[in-house]
Amino acid sequence: MNTILVLGAGRSSSSLIHYLLDEAARRNWKVIVGDTAIAAAQQRIQNHTHGVAIAFDINNQADAASIIANADVVISLLPATLHPLVAAICLASNKHLLTASYVSDEMLAYHEEAKQKGLLFLNECGLDPGIDHMSAIQVIDKIRNSGGKLISFESFTGGLIAPETDRENPWRYKFTWNPRNVVMAGQSTAKYLQHGQFKYIPYQQLFQRTTPVQVSGYGDYEGYANRDSLKYINTYQLNGIETMLRGTLRNKGYCAAWNILVQLGCCDDSYAMENVSEMTHADFMASFTDGVSENVASWLAHRFSVTSNGPELERLNWSGLFSTEPVGLDHGTPAQILEHILNKKWKLNPDDKDLIVMWHRFVYKVGDQVKEIQASLVAKGDDAVFTAMAKTVGLPLGIAATLLLEGKIKSRGVVIPVDKEIYDPVLERLKAFDIVLEEKEM
Amino acid sequence: MNTILVLGAGRSSSSLIHYLLDEAARRNWKVIVGDTAIAAAQQRIQNHTHGVAIAFDINNQADAASIIANADVVISLLPATLHPLVAAICLASNKHLLTASYVSDEMLAYHEEAKQKGLLFLNECGLDPGIDHMSAIQVIDKIRNSGGKLISFESFTGGLIAPETDRENPWRYKFTWNPRNVVMAGQSTAKYLQHGQFKYIPYQQLFQRTTPVQVSGYGDYEGYANRDSLKYINTYQLNGIETMLRGTLRNKGYCAAWNILVQLGCCDDSYAMENVSEMTHADFMASFTDGVSENVASWLAHRFSVTSNGPELERLNWSGLFSTEPVGLDHGTPAQILEHILNKKWKLNPDDKDLIVMWHRFVYKVGDQVKEIQASLVAKGDDAVFTAMAKTVGLPLGIAATLLLEGKIKSRGVVIPVDKEIYDPVLERLKAFDIVLEEKEM
Repeated sequence: MNTILVLGAGRSSSSLIHYLLDEAARRNWKVIVGDTAIAAAQQRIQNHTHGVAIAFDINNQADAASIIANADVVISLLPATLHPLVAAICLASNKHLLTASYVSDEMLAYHEEAKQKGLLFLNECGLDPGIDHMSAIQVIDKIRNSGGKLISFESFTGGLIAPETDRENPWRYKFTWNPRNVVMAGQSTAKYLQHGQFKYIPYQQLFQRTTPVQVSGYGDYEGYANRDSLKYINTYQLNGIETMLRGTLRNKGYCAAWNILVQLGCCDDSYAMENVSEMTHADFMASFTDGVSENVASWLAHRFSVTSNGPELERLNWSGLFSTEPVGLDHGTPAQILEHILNKKWKLNPDDKDLIVMWHRFVYKVGDQVKEIQASLVAKGDDAVFTAMAKTVGLPLGIAATLLLEGKIKSRGVVIPVDKEIYDPVLERLKAFDIVLEEKEM
Repeated sequence: MNTILVLGAGRSSSSLIHYLLDEAARRNWKVIVGDTAIAAAQQRIQNHTHGVAIAFDINNQADAASIIANADVVISLLPATLHPLVAAICLASNKHLLTASYVSDEMLAYHEEAKQKGLLFLNECGLDPGIDHMSAIQVIDKIRNSGGKLISFESFTGGLIAPETDRENPWRYKFTWNPRNVVMAGQSTAKYLQHGQFKYIPYQQLFQRTTPVQVSGYGDYEGYANRDSLKYINTYQLNGIETMLRGTLRNKGYCAAWNILVQLGCCDDSYAMENVSEMTHADFMASFTDGVSENVASWLAHRFSVTSNGPELERLNWSGLFSTEPVGLDHGTPAQILEHILNKKWKLNPDDKDLIVMWHRFVYKVGDQVKEIQASLVAKGDDAVFTAMAKTVGLPLGIAATLLLEGKIKSRGVVIPVDKEIYDPVLERLKAFDIVLEEKEM
């Protein structure tokens, strides 16, 4: 009997575990879900006959090793920084490992050994990174096979909220995954290729250098550059491409408002603020100005050349950032305090529906003719548990694990899903969940 | 016979070593100067009968320990990150240690042990930090002793160039100390107190939130906040003070131009750029825009709402940042490349004279009356070797070492020069070198 071990029962795990339990029931497999809080794991399993909830703490290495030793495949949803620890144990006990996280240098260092041992360490197999790679490469392969040469690839993905949810929320955004990652987003320099030139955008410019994106039927978005797009030129085998940009999608207007928080230093996680227990939301904001709490909005309007009732300050005001409400923490870094304040309005309510929007633009040449394809994928959540985020992050992992146990994935070592043997069947099975890329020739 | 060991024979060491050799000749002491490049140490000693030049590498721990074992006092001018290594050896071999660097947490951890062993580990005893502490506390003590209560203290120090040097240089600035530190300046959040409120300025705001400073007879300057001013509230014993701000002084206009480099990400040291060997100065700049090298100035004018022939772009242009000259490096981070480009114009010529300008503003109450003292200290260099920077960083160290060997400093442990027994005689002896704070009641 095959056993799949899922590490982490947080908000991205619901659809993955649901999918695996269904597969386990059909195939007589076993699904073990481990979390430092066993109640969270039990909540996901719900007494399913093919599921077992356990307490799991990666920092307790002996226990972790014996739990991993009993699995055939490990899917880690733990924070990305912990994956190398999981990988080391998987290597020692000859277990496959799947994650939705970016390949770190530590992870990459395991490649040769994993390959030699016949183990698959599949990473970047969630939404972004994940479905974005898979759906893009499928289109790129089609362009190549029809004799086209790709000259430009841009791709943006965002986890937003559905049009019918929270209609008065001007950000069109709530926390559908780790809130800390949202607050800390973009703090390393983004690197990309534009018309053959290497380009770099530091954090302080990131939310001011956006790309407008329209998705018909859904509306106006904007994308900001994300991390290192350059390394995917090799991974996607696109040597000679002139423009290559991966990024994050937000509703139009989000970035200009968020930029004010970035410019002020509200997302800084490097020091503890003073006097937090006495602090109101407006005091928090005023700490980053040379004005006083009562006038923080007008200080910002003047400093950032925006109008007091304009869309940027409207968003900050809607989030309560100018209010005299106490923060409600005893201590914290700016990033921790901002996350806490934002969560008061950005926490998903039980009936909220989130929305994943992915958009790719491919520009390619066939002979002398320049052609363009735009493609988009939109997925809506069912509620605050089975979110579109949970589906699109978790289902690719669940499907990949299933394919692996079916013997249909031959790749070994540290890989990402850019091989046809992975992305074709994963994308095919995602269709059953209405997760489909729609292409349009422009 | 007392032996003083100076570690590091770089550009800040000239006046210190000259001073120590003079003292050594008068008192029959010995001065040993160690540097990884023995030629640099020899250059400073110039066959002086009381001086010895040696090769010294702190990373060769055994050799370093035996060299330090032969000294009575060690003065370290090594990079600040190496001071804890030096301190560990000094502790093991019972030697006093003097530096001009900020007290790091690692250094502070040695306090109790140094104190128990009867050792002085005197830090922040150069210019800034150093003379700024000493000259300010002397005034603050005088205010206290006359029954005043300090409500605001602001202090700015800068290493600039003399009015007669490089008259066409619009920055009024050249590299008079470690160029890397100039390029990397301000990358941690500045913290200060303003009207009783804790304030924080992140890097991206730092060069836009300046304080205007006038020094009569010299001209218009501007100061930007520097590091953590809050910790000096305790050190200076100023509990209850309402405003406390320490910072760096530049000629008026410097910060607005430098801010453009900060906003672009030119001072980032976290990644290596691509294609450096092919890069011109303008290509370097264009990497941080979405424009092309030929139009980088107009892109910047548009992006930062400045005029093409205005003072900000005039400074960047004067530094050759829009030119088609090759950078001349094979690889580098943005910060390394920017330093290399700036050094082409900002390197001191043999006859250049630098200028140190320090400015303090004290606001205090005597009864109900609010009073203000402004104080300034201006020092000019002799040439590119005996710079004002070398004098003001080195002489306080040399004087403190002399006082220590004379038995006139009783403080022990990790300290900074805020005790009367140190600052009074150091400031007194600095007068002989025309390094004097001028006070003015406003």
